[in-house]
This record gives sequence, structure tokens and C-alpha cells, in this order.
Amino acid sequence: MSIITLGHGSGGKLTHNLIEDIFYKYFDNDILLQKNDSSILPKLEGKIAVTTDSFVINPIFFNGGDIGKLSVCGTVNDLAMSGAKPLYITVGFIIEEGFEIENLEKIVESISITAKNANVKIVAGDTKVVEKGSADKIYINTTGIGVIDKDIYLSGENAKPGDKIIISGSLGDHGVCIMSKRKNLEFDVSVKSDCNLLNELIEEILYTSNNVKVLRDPTRGGLATTLNEFASQSKRSISINEEDIPVKDEVRSMCEILGLDPLYIANEGKVVLIASKEDAQRVVEVMRKNPMGKDAQIIGEVLEDDKKIVSLKTDIGGTRLLSMPSGELLPRIC
Amino acid sequence: MSIITLGHGSGGKLTHNLIEDIFYKYFDNDILLQKNDSSILPKLEGKIAVTTDSFVINPIFFNGGDIGKLSVCGTVNDLAMSGAKPLYITVGFIIEEGFEIENLEKIVESISITAKNANVKIVAGDTKVVEKGSADKIYINTTGIGVIDKDIYLSGENAKPGDKIIISGSLGDHGVCIMSKRKNLEFDVSVKSDCNLLNELIEEILYTSNNVKVLRDPTRGGLATTLNEFASQSKRSISINEEDIPVKDEVRSMCEILGLDPLYIANEGKVVLIASKEDAQRVVEVMRKNPMGKDAQIIGEVLEDDKKIVSLKTDIGGTRLLSMPSGELLPRIC
Repeated sequence: MSIITLGHGSGGKLTHNLIEDIFYKYFDNDILLQKNDSSILPKLEGKIAVTTDSFVINPIFFNGGDIGKLSVCGTVNDLAMSGAKPLYITVGFIIEEGFEIENLEKIVESISITAKNANVKIVAGDTKVVEKGSADKIYINTTGIGVIDKDIYLSGENAKPGDKIIISGSLGDHGVCIMSKRKNLEFDVSVKSDCNLLNELIEEILYTSNNVKVLRDPTRGGLATTLNEFASQSKRSISINEEDIPVKDEVRSMCEILGLDPLYIANEGKVVLIASKEDAQRVVEVMRKNPMGKDAQIIGEVLEDDKKIVSLKTDIGGTRLLSMPSGELLPRIC
Repeated sequence: MSIITLGHGSGGKLTHNLIEDIFYKYFDNDILLQKNDSSILPKLEGKIAVTTDSFVINPIFFNGGDIGKLSVCGTVNDLAMSGAKPLYITVGFIIEEGFEIENLEKIVESISITAKNANVKIVAGDTKVVEKGSADKIYINTTGIGVIDKDIYLSGENAKPGDKIIISGSLGDHGVCIMSKRKNLEFDVSVKSDCNLLNELIEEILYTSNNVKVLRDPTRGGLATTLNEFASQSKRSISINEEDIPVKDEVRSMCEILGLDPLYIANEGKVVLIASKEDAQRVVEVMRKNPMGKDAQIIGEVLEDDKKIVSLKTDIGGTRLLSMPSGELLPRIC
């Protein structure tokens, strides 16, 4: 049988076959193979970081990745952003009846490869099948567990006036890649999603400086949303400079055509961080040595004032307020 | 606004409002309120148990519970079955555009109450919204973390010939409740789902005996599927007696009308376990003192032979093979 049927979600023979033939084939590790209701992990040293994320992206395959790679990167990156070393993830699938098993296998393989690259083990899983029309192909939840072995607490609250805002690279690549595929644009679009693992880059950053205040990946809502969260947590305003923000020419022109602002578009392989004035340049230099941070830039700073607003100094010398977005630019971007 | 819009899944202002007004209102605890990409848990002593489950049940409100209560019970029970003390859960929502916020709030409240009853904290969450027609109302993933502080390893592998099979109460209540609601049966059906927390009952069982070999909740696929898993793991056959298996009259007659077998129907508040011959009766007596185990029964035993089959001695003196089900009795039962 080459498609997923409701029987694959029944808990019976078809479910067991799917688990044996596909999941255990790619996700083989001693913990998952305990095959019990819960998986038992070895004792963990240090504080524990936990994060959960569901992925409903459309399309499920795109230039630079797929929903499987994305679902591991997203959760591994969220763990890394809190200063944790990612160790384990769980994977829950909700699959639409009629989904091709060949595509499921591609996604499962992609999850497996990405997890190996991130050095995390897939320790528990679940599969549900819903009737045709009750989901769009496949949705994936990943929940991640990591450990924090340093005495570190990263949060927007830590930001102080004078601290610098740093971005790891160009903005908008993921969102524009997905949007161009969805809009069926007639001209040739080669923008590749930046979907990638950031855990090594983050480890290098935190090794370089003890004065990193907060790290976050600007996914849904883009850089503008993340900076608004930082402003709200730190109770300070933030100012950034348009000329310092890296945006690829191709992304910029697509944004102009589509009437979008790259500062509000989702990224899946970028980190924005706040570091002390003294350490900022050193952090940027270390980041640039890693392929994931090669275009790192200082793009602005935390201000003295407590209005909690985010403003952009434009190329032409003006100032523009970057408010929190209220609507939805592009549903199902991740 | 009284319905969920795509904007609620954007990561922007509407998402933040939803989180503040609904999620933080019911899920308030110091860990969740860290408001960072990952939540930081205190150091955990002992081995760690992890489990994940997605809930896609239809209907989302039913006699005896709702998708919120179910999503906490299911994951807490899976942790308890491995001998773990459940401590933390994460909750991921996938919501269909147009879903009533009033119903979301009911579900969130139900999650909150059930989590408090189970003494677990909700430590991380995620919300995605998909277009109308890309989901059926609401799907919930819960991932649970617990600790095992005893030197215990529960698994079907531990079962030995002569060990007794014990069930905590009547079979089929959840499945028949859901099915009767779905089939819009004309006659009055008052069957209530058994959806409930089992962590206290399990704690009492494990406190009573060191000779419990394995515990499992017979959800999708029912008792027959669980016993087949035990037979496969232990490499032994299992025999059970129909006359000892508690099935409510109402459930039995509904099953006759619908042509179903209660041994294959999902339960959401029952445990099946294997205990040594010596301890079995004592375990049953302890179980009967807990409301969740008041109809506990020894229903059969592990046999010497290694054919790994499950058989039922019927009321009329015959023997019937209980094979692993291959199709789907009732999609979206949990």
C-alpha cells in the first residue's frame, strides 16, 4: 500500500508496520527502541530546558528544506536560544488520509538526518491519521529537551541601555522562499529558505562572551516582532539602522513586488541577540567564522528611554516606528 | 473578536493577546511565565521518562470529558505506566480558523483543571492556526516529562509463565461513548467515557507490589491490542477468560447493535497489568479501594508456550483467538 489510510492510525497491525518499516528504520536508537508507553532517559545533570512547537508549513517541501528538517531545526534552535545543549526530541505526526507513504518516508529521513546533525536523539513518537480534508497533508509537533550546564539566564529583561543588537545574517529568506512557491510566481525565483541548525553557532557565541543578554530566532513575525518582545521585556526602547541590516537583493526586490517588509518576514536559520557594548564586536567576529553567521552585523542598540518602542533609522535619514504586527502576513509559514 | 483568525497564529499582537488573555489566565505558573523560547525546569533527580501524544478526537466535547481533559489524562497516564511520577507537560495547539474562542477557553480551562488534579505543571506551549478546512476544529499535542525515583523497569519482556493479567475496570466505555455521539443514535445513550487520570492508582499499585511486570493503558486498539503487545514482548502466549472481563450492560448491548467487540475498543481511564501469581490478588484488593480501580479483576494469565498468541476462553466454553486488529474500528477516537 502506497498511501496512508485511517488504519495506519488505529494502533493495530498497520500502525505497528508503519512504526517498524519507517520510523524505526530512520529513528533507530536504544531509547526509542524500548517500545514502551514512555521512554526512559538517563539522569540529566544541570537545569533542564523544554520547548514545544507544531509545524504546519505549506508547502511541505521547499527550496532549502522540508517540514521534517524545519521541525527539528525549529525546536533545536529554541533550546539553543535559552543557552541549553539540545539532547532529545519527541515527534508527533498528524497525517491526512491519502498522504503518500513515499513522501512520509522522505520527511522521516530528513528528520533523522537533521537530528543526527544536531546531535539529538528522537526518543518518543506518535502518529495520528485523520480523514481526508481534516488536515492538509501532514503536521508535525516536536518537543525538545536540553540541559543548561552553565550558570546562565538569558532573557530580554537583562538588556541595558548601550547594549548592542546583533543579527546573524540576511533577513526574509525563508518567508520569501515559501511565499514565492505559494504564489506560483511566473518569473524565476531562486531564493532558498535559510532553514538551518543554529546550536553550534550559539555555543560559540556563549563561549566567546559572558555578556550576551538574550538570544532569539526571529521566526513568525520576523525581526520586528522579536525586537518588540525584547523592548517589552527590558522596558527600554530599541533603535536599529536600516543600512546595517543585511537583506539579499533578490529578497528585497521580491518584497517590493509583493508589498512586504523584510523586517516582518519569518526566518528559520537566524539569531538576533543583545550583547554588551564592550563584547559586541568580538561576538560578531566569532559569528562570521561560522557559515551560519557569516553575514553577522551589529544593527542597533538599546536606548535609555523606557517607552518600549522599536524604531528604524532609514537609509534616507528618517525614522520609522516598527510596531508589533497585528494581522497575518502569510499563514502557515512554519 | 469571538473566533480564531489566522492572525492569532501570526506570532504578532493577536497571538500575544491570545496568550495573555487565555493561556496565561489558566496556565499560570512561574515556569511558563518565564516567556522565553524554552522554559527552564529545576534539576530533576532520578531517571527521566518522556512521552508524546497528539489528540484529534471527534467530537471534542463528550460525556465524561473533552479534548482538553483527554490530552492531559493520556499523557499523564502514559508517564505513570512506566513507573514515573508525572511532573511537567507541554501543550501544542493546532486550531482551525473560525473556531470559537469560547470553546477554546473551555478546553484550556479543562486542561488547567486536569493538570492541577494530576499535580503536573504546564511548562511550554505553542499555537498554530490553519485555514478553514485544513483541520477539524482543534488538535492538541501534549508531551510529558516525569521522574522515576525507584529502581524499576516495567516492560512486557518481564512477564513470566504463571503471571496474572489484571484489568482495572470495565472495557469499552470511552469508545462506545464517542461512537454513540458520532452515529447520532436515536435511542438514549448515557454511556460516559472513562477518560480519567490513573497516576494515583498506579502509584498505589507499585507501592503494594515489587512484582508488577508491566502496566499499560489499553487505548487505541483496546485490550486485545495491548495483550498482543505483551505477548510479543514477553515471547509467551496469553489466555484470558471472557466471564471475568467487566463490560457494562449498556456497552455490551451497544456493541451488539453496532457489531463491535468491546475487547478492541479504546479506553481512556483503564490500566491492564501483569503481576506475579503471588502478588496478583493483593494488587487487585488495593486497586478496588481506589475509585479508578473499583471493578479491578484478574482476567487471565501468561502461558508457558512461546507462540505469542492471545486467546479468549468464551462464556460458552470455547476458545477464540484475539489477533492484532489490522483495520480501523473508529477513526479519531483519541
